[in-house]
Amino acid sequence: MYNDLINGRLGTLRSSMRNAGVDYYLITTADFHNSEYVADYFKSREYFSGFTGSNGDLLVWADGAALWTDGRYFLQAEEELAGTGIALMRMGEKGVPTVEDFLVKNMLPGQKLGTDGRCIPISRGDRLTEALNKVNDKACMDAENPEDSSLVWDIDLADAAWAERPNLPTGSIWFIDKETVGESRTGRLTRVREKMACEGAKAFVLSSLDDIAWLFLMRGSDIEYNPVALSYAIVYADKVVLYINDNTLSGADAGMLEDEGFVIKKYSDIINDLKKIGTDIGCDGTVMADPDRLSYALYMSLVDSKAKIKTLTSPTVLMKAVKTEREIENERLAHIKDGVAVTKFMYWLHCLREDPAFINGDKKVTEIEAAEILLDYRKQQSDFLDQSFAPIVATGAHGAIIHYEADEKSNAVIEKDAFLLMDTGAQYLQGTTDITRTFVMGQPSEIMRKHYTAVLCGNLELADAYFPEGTTGPNLDILARKALWKYNLDFRHGTGHGVGYLLNVHEGPQNINQKGRMGRLGTPFEPGMITSDEPGVYIPGEYGIRLENMMVCVERGESEYGHFYGFETLTMVPFDRRSICVDEMSEYDKELLNKYHSLVYENIAEYLTDEEREWLRAETAKI
Amino acid sequence: MYNDLINGRLGTLRSSMRNAGVDYYLITTADFHNSEYVADYFKSREYFSGFTGSNGDLLVWADGAALWTDGRYFLQAEEELAGTGIALMRMGEKGVPTVEDFLVKNMLPGQKLGTDGRCIPISRGDRLTEALNKVNDKACMDAENPEDSSLVWDIDLADAAWAERPNLPTGSIWFIDKETVGESRTGRLTRVREKMACEGAKAFVLSSLDDIAWLFLMRGSDIEYNPVALSYAIVYADKVVLYINDNTLSGADAGMLEDEGFVIKKYSDIINDLKKIGTDIGCDGTVMADPDRLSYALYMSLVDSKAKIKTLTSPTVLMKAVKTEREIENERLAHIKDGVAVTKFMYWLHCLREDPAFINGDKKVTEIEAAEILLDYRKQQSDFLDQSFAPIVATGAHGAIIHYEADEKSNAVIEKDAFLLMDTGAQYLQGTTDITRTFVMGQPSEIMRKHYTAVLCGNLELADAYFPEGTTGPNLDILARKALWKYNLDFRHGTGHGVGYLLNVHEGPQNINQKGRMGRLGTPFEPGMITSDEPGVYIPGEYGIRLENMMVCVERGESEYGHFYGFETLTMVPFDRRSICVDEMSEYDKELLNKYHSLVYENIAEYLTDEEREWLRAETAKI
Repeated sequence: MYNDLINGRLGTLRSSMRNAGVDYYLITTADFHNSEYVADYFKSREYFSGFTGSNGDLLVWADGAALWTDGRYFLQAEEELAGTGIALMRMGEKGVPTVEDFLVKNMLPGQKLGTDGRCIPISRGDRLTEALNKVNDKACMDAENPEDSSLVWDIDLADAAWAERPNLPTGSIWFIDKETVGESRTGRLTRVREKMACEGAKAFVLSSLDDIAWLFLMRGSDIEYNPVALSYAIVYADKVVLYINDNTLSGADAGMLEDEGFVIKKYSDIINDLKKIGTDIGCDGTVMADPDRLSYALYMSLVDSKAKIKTLTSPTVLMKAVKTEREIENERLAHIKDGVAVTKFMYWLHCLREDPAFINGDKKVTEIEAAEILLDYRKQQSDFLDQSFAPIVATGAHGAIIHYEADEKSNAVIEKDAFLLMDTGAQYLQGTTDITRTFVMGQPSEIMRKHYTAVLCGNLELADAYFPEGTTGPNLDILARKALWKYNLDFRHGTGHGVGYLLNVHEGPQNINQKGRMGRLGTPFEPGMITSDEPGVYIPGEYGIRLENMMVCVERGESEYGHFYGFETLTMVPFDRRSICVDEMSEYDKELLNKYHSLVYENIAEYLTDEEREWLRAETAKI
Repeated sequence: MYNDLINGRLGTLRSSMRNAGVDYYLITTADFHNSEYVADYFKSREYFSGFTGSNGDLLVWADGAALWTDGRYFLQAEEELAGTGIALMRMGEKGVPTVEDFLVKNMLPGQKLGTDGRCIPISRGDRLTEALNKVNDKACMDAENPEDSSLVWDIDLADAAWAERPNLPTGSIWFIDKETVGESRTGRLTRVREKMACEGAKAFVLSSLDDIAWLFLMRGSDIEYNPVALSYAIVYADKVVLYINDNTLSGADAGMLEDEGFVIKKYSDIINDLKKIGTDIGCDGTVMADPDRLSYALYMSLVDSKAKIKTLTSPTVLMKAVKTEREIENERLAHIKDGVAVTKFMYWLHCLREDPAFINGDKKVTEIEAAEILLDYRKQQSDFLDQSFAPIVATGAHGAIIHYEADEKSNAVIEKDAFLLMDTGAQYLQGTTDITRTFVMGQPSEIMRKHYTAVLCGNLELADAYFPEGTTGPNLDILARKALWKYNLDFRHGTGHGVGYLLNVHEGPQNINQKGRMGRLGTPFEPGMITSDEPGVYIPGEYGIRLENMMVCVERGESEYGHFYGFETLTMVPFDRRSICVDEMSEYDKELLNKYHSLVYENIAEYLTDEEREWLRAETAKI
């Protein structure tokens, strides 16, 4: 089986490589902003390899090609790469080199490596350059070495070789009222400019889409689930240059921005502007930029400009994480609406579970159908905009696959006497939601109930944390895990992530996990931060349980030891009581559950039908 | 009031400085090994300033001198420095420069700074050098600058100026049987040499006294409380060079070591040997050393030698922390003996508390007397060697001073109806102990009992932790603190530190605290590590409560998530039940206390008199 299509595409790419004088060409999986999801325009790795997974590096050379991906995708990649001649490099397996090690071993001194530097972070560019230095070191042993190997980062060979490439997305841009978030664009810019002044910076380059969206109260629709617009920005003391695609901004909005000292430029102008920014701001001017958020191409353009570069975590990261009072009030409203939608869905699921046709197997509902039914309930809520990520609806053993996403092939009928795990979320004008509930579709076994209860206690105990300022995620993580550890169980994902305000569902800098990031404890909690609380347990081949609420950090006390904080749970959806094993709960745990359930009833009941309300009353009754 | 004595000494030092061509001279508070306690020989800062605190830097120049110390010592330093002309620099107060900043501001380009480089760590040497570079930068503005300012690190001006200086301690050295610790010197050396081979090192320089003691099963008595000997060592593939003082080793022991391939050299030979180690091991040889444990002088000698230096945490640090099976068995025995001594003391205290003469105030016992009585009980135990640190015995408000140590001036009579905090420990042939108990000497108030109970619950819940491999101190810390946080209370010290085996009572690398070290999570727990568990609460001007047990990490389970660990409590001493507020304890807490108390009774009872045993039975009865 020979894959003509892919081989044809690789052939075209190879002739582009020859024309460009490039011996190896690397295609990564990313857009220009290191976004979690990417638009179709950026799917060149998929186009040239046929591999559709969410993570992979494709390396192409004159007479070969190889694709690196991780354990989640080994089987899928094997199937999709069949007949393409592309070697599968199973990342993390013994004896499998990294891309960089492969280059060091195979490249000859003087050969060139090409990649689109806009699609790799600075650290990756540094690693590739280091690999090429090692290639050059090999030449020392060789008397006649032509020129040095180097990284050609300012080319995009996919463009010429991909005739039918989709356009860059150009979704229209809109703006949130300052009243809605309780802070104006000018107010946010003032805070950023104060930070620039502290750092002695005359310009600040922003490249991450959610930071730009937050700073300018701007929203778009260029990326699925994330309401952001493809853009760059440079903040100066006296003006802001915003780089966006043509025809994405209304005339009125453009006028509004220009009145506020904005200059609107083409999206692609950023590189050339950065290359001359050193001259623009004067020889003693410093440019501030975040090394984790800038692409290698933008960084190298800054270096070319001879500007002084001050790298630091963008001040917008912390500012964006700490929500304003108005944003928090809105999030409460969004979560009541979302709670109503999910609770209505739960009632529907309850009816399904009791339906003789479901019980005897005549009535079948698939995972995708269930997701659509829940989506319909959400669409009935006012100001619903979109889902906040691809819904995870997983029956039985599918629930044990942490990143499961039902597609036409895997889509299964919801099983009886099995857990149904649903991790879903929505974007409302009033904020972003992210909730996981696990329901049992019949009679749970004793061990299923014990595991469910351990996850539930973890969720409740973490939400009840009370702690002094300075406390970080790795300090709190144990509260969510210790009930599981008793069974020698654990879960291989973080316990909590930050969530944006009508923005990306995954946001930093705070998070809750055991090991921190690179062994560091990370950013302490501050009032106003919104974080998820989502312990789980996964029994491969059997089931998965995850229970997730969103919480906002609030101030609760003060003493000579500083401020003391706790969490207010935003999510308003009952936990499936059929799965609870009351004997496994301490009095404290029961109290926490009863308190939460009565809060859910108070907030949600009035928006339900009589039948739904009666069901919710029983569902949230004291245990 | 003019202090003739100190001014005379400073005069002598200044003439030594002139002779040596040194303009500023810095005397730090440390020995050559960065030890926690130092021998009298190393107390030159005290000799030249009159200041006796445990932390301080003395800087002397032609017409002035200044002493830097921290907040614990401001009052004491003011008194002790009166009439010396030495300016007190209150570290951490606003506007007070660091030593380095002071030097940058006051030194003239070309001036020399002297210090004994054996008494500062590498990082301090680097900071001083950096300061001198800034002094040199000042010269750029000046046309005629003579030569560069530099750090003269290979002098000890105290030696010439301090006529009656005590000798270096030369306590005799002894060795532990390999049967006692379950591992021979050769076995330990093999493990270290394997690590050297991994790192490609031909030599490994050891400078920290407890690492040397551990590696060679060697013990000494050169430092109070720490059974170590002043020494250095270099491990090569085929030999070990041990640098020690003359006449500290018996002929038999010297013979034993020589048979095992040891070369014994003079303590002071290390510097010259390091200066030529590059030649000794060949031009491609690498020397391995721990930057946190080597002095600046040793490091600079290595640099001089032109050897390749590989810096990394000494492999002995982790090896030493993980006790052998035999060491753990011995520690259990040591803790039973120590438990008997402390329990007998508690019975004595109980009798005192009931004594009408104590109650009416006729019978007075001071803090120092109480410490001596406890010490006598310990001395009655077999194989008792020494205390493991200066005992903290603090009545009433003294207990709120975390590092309180009673001296002739502060020594107070034990108060009625007050807490008595006792943090003490011992060295037995079978191991090192460290225990804190807080007793109430009459009727505790309700708030005293609540605070005591919160500390107790923290202690018990931490000891009951059950967690997977990879878990670190900052992950567990919350278990000890959350009961206190409920009251908006906290404590400003770590929750737990590693403890040596018949070695230093403070040992790394694992520890339990909230913020890690420099924001890093640190070393995960491993079975065999011995760690203290010591939450506390301190109400300034009123009382302090601290409850401390020692625990050894043990393996308790295994699953696909790896090994699961818990702690076995080593300390065998009841908690004062008169201070407990049962209503504040959950069922779980009560169960933990009852389990611990019954264990204490089982282990201790047989070694007590009938009266003591009856009292212990009541003291450890179920609550």
